[in-house]
Amino acid sequence: MRIDLNETANILENADNILLLSHSHPDGDTLGSASALARALISKGKRVRVECSDPIPKDFSFMFEGLDFGDFEPDLIAAIDIADTKLLGRDAEGKYSGKIGLCIDHHGSNILYADKVYLEPDSASTAEIIYLLLQKMNVEITPQIASCLFTGVTTDTGCFRFSNTTVRTFEIAAALAKAGADTYNIIQVFFETKTKTYAALERLALDSMRFYFSDRCAVICVTQDMYKRSGSDESETDRLANLPRQIEGVLVGVTMRELKDGSFKASVRTHGDIDASAICQRLGGGGHMGAAGCTLYGSKQQAVNSLLKEIQAEIDAYTID
Amino acid sequence: MRIDLNETANILENADNILLLSHSHPDGDTLGSASALARALISKGKRVRVECSDPIPKDFSFMFEGLDFGDFEPDLIAAIDIADTKLLGRDAEGKYSGKIGLCIDHHGSNILYADKVYLEPDSASTAEIIYLLLQKMNVEITPQIASCLFTGVTTDTGCFRFSNTTVRTFEIAAALAKAGADTYNIIQVFFETKTKTYAALERLALDSMRFYFSDRCAVICVTQDMYKRSGSDESETDRLANLPRQIEGVLVGVTMRELKDGSFKASVRTHGDIDASAICQRLGGGGHMGAAGCTLYGSKQQAVNSLLKEIQAEIDAYTID
Repeated sequence: MRIDLNETANILENADNILLLSHSHPDGDTLGSASALARALISKGKRVRVECSDPIPKDFSFMFEGLDFGDFEPDLIAAIDIADTKLLGRDAEGKYSGKIGLCIDHHGSNILYADKVYLEPDSASTAEIIYLLLQKMNVEITPQIASCLFTGVTTDTGCFRFSNTTVRTFEIAAALAKAGADTYNIIQVFFETKTKTYAALERLALDSMRFYFSDRCAVICVTQDMYKRSGSDESETDRLANLPRQIEGVLVGVTMRELKDGSFKASVRTHGDIDASAICQRLGGGGHMGAAGCTLYGSKQQAVNSLLKEIQAEIDAYTID
Repeated sequence: MRIDLNETANILENADNILLLSHSHPDGDTLGSASALARALISKGKRVRVECSDPIPKDFSFMFEGLDFGDFEPDLIAAIDIADTKLLGRDAEGKYSGKIGLCIDHHGSNILYADKVYLEPDSASTAEIIYLLLQKMNVEITPQIASCLFTGVTTDTGCFRFSNTTVRTFEIAAALAKAGADTYNIIQVFFETKTKTYAALERLALDSMRFYFSDRCAVICVTQDMYKRSGSDESETDRLANLPRQIEGVLVGVTMRELKDGSFKASVRTHGDIDASAICQRLGGGGHMGAAGCTLYGSKQQAVNSLLKEIQAEIDAYTID
C-alpha cells in the first residue's frame, strides 16, 4: 500500500528495533540514505542496524563510522532505495522477502513488494526523500547525516548533471552544505578522482566505442581482457556508464561490461524522452527513464544485437512522435 | 580604491550610459556576469553595452539574445571579472586603460587598475557577486538573468567540483534554479557534451600524460599535430585542463597546449595548499590558488622543464610545511 511521508514518519517513530536494508552492489544513494536514517533513528533512541548483502565499498565506509549496530530481533524491516526484492541479494531475498514492513524508494519501477511503500518516482534520489523525512521527524541534520545524504544526492544525479536533478535537488544540496556536509571531499572522491588503473581502463573503453543509427547510439564494451591490460577491475566501472551519452548527438549511450561468467551487464543512459527503462525492461532489467540496466547472455555480438534491436524500436518511436 | 557592495550598487545606479567589459578569450563567468548585469541595468532604464575583444563563442550566445546594445558614449566603464588590463585584449587595452571607473572581480591577483574595485577573492565566481549585487539593487532575477549567472557559477567551479565552491555557491545555485535558470541544458552544454572531435583529442591528450615527482605531478601536452589527427582545434581544449589533477595522488596537474607560433599555454591545477598562482606568477602568468596559467617559450622540453622546476619548489615547500 502506498503511503504518504507523514505515515512513513509515524511507522518509524512507532518502531523500536529497526532493520534497514540496502540493495546489493550498494551505491551512494542506498547506503547514504540508510546510514543517514540509521543515525537519525539512533538519535531518537531506537535500536537500528543497516544490512547489505555485499561488503561496503571503502569509499562509503565513512558513512558508518562510529555506528555500533549490535544484534537484535527487528520489529520493523525497512527497505531503502530497493525497487525489487531481487535486489536484496540472494541470501537476503530468501531471508526477508515477505517480511518487509516499509519501503522508501524513488524508482518508478518499484514492484510494491513491501506492506507500506513511500515512493516518489520524481525524486532524483532516495536521499532527498530521507532529508524531507528527517525534517518531518524534527531530527537535527548533523554534519555526519548531511554528508551521508549529500553523497546520495550527488551520486544519483551525477553531481547535478542528470535530467533527474530538480530545483529541490539544488535546495536540498544547499541545505546539506549549510548543515556541514563535507561537500568538497565527497565530490572529489566520487567525481574528480580517478585511479591510474581506472584512467587506463577508461582509455581502453573509449577506444572500443562504436556508433549506430546515424551516431544517435554509442556503445562501449568493457571486456575481461581490458581489466587485465589496465590493472583495473569491475569495481571501477560505474563511471564508464555515462561516457557514451556524453558524445554530442548521441541519444542512447550503452556501456556493456563482460562478467566473469561471460554474460554482459548493460548500462543504458538516454537523453530527452527516450525511455531507458523501457529498453531494459524488455530485456529483463529495469531502472529509470534516463538510466537503466539489464543482463544479457550469449556472445558479445548477440548481446549487442539484442540491445540494438530494442534501442532502434525506442529511437524510431521517439523520432516519429 | 577598494569599495564595498553598497558603493558598487550606488556607482551603477548613478550612471546612465554604462559600458561593461568582459575579458578576452571570454569564459562563462565574464560573459555570464556581464550579460546578467547588463540585463539588470537595462531593466532599470540604463543604456548598456557589453564589449569583448574576442567574438562570443556560440555556446554563450544565448546570454545576449534579445539584447540590443546600440552605440553611445559611456559615462561609466566597468570591467567585469578582469584581473588585469592586459586581459582586455590588445585593442581594448589601449582604448580603455586608465578610463575604467569600476571593476567587479573575484581574482585575488587583481592588480587594482580601476578607480573603484569591488573584489571578493573568496568568491568562487564573479557571477556570485553579481547575484548579491542584483539583490542589493532590488532587481528581479528573471529566468534569463538566472541562466546567465548559473553559467558563471557552474563554469568557474567545474560544476561545483573545485575547491572554491562554498555553501554560498550551493545556495546561490539553488536560488538561480528556483528563479528559472535552465540548469539542465546549461550543465549539459558545458559539462556533459563532447563533440566526437573533442573526444578524439581527449584520448590523444590522455595518451600523452607523463608523471613526475613520485606521481604527485601529471603533465599532458596537446600538440598542433593532435588537432590535425583528431579534427579538433584550440577552441575545444578548456576542459582538458582538469584531467591530470583527477588522477589519484596527483597534487599538481598541468595541461600544456602548443600554440601556432610554437609557444605553449600552460594551465596548472592544484590540490590542497599548493598554490597554482604562485607557480604561474614566477613564469609571468597568474590566476587563483587552485587554478592558474602562463605562457612558455622555447622547445616543448624546455617549456616542461621550466614549469617542473617551479612545481618542484612548490611541492617541496608544501611537503616540508
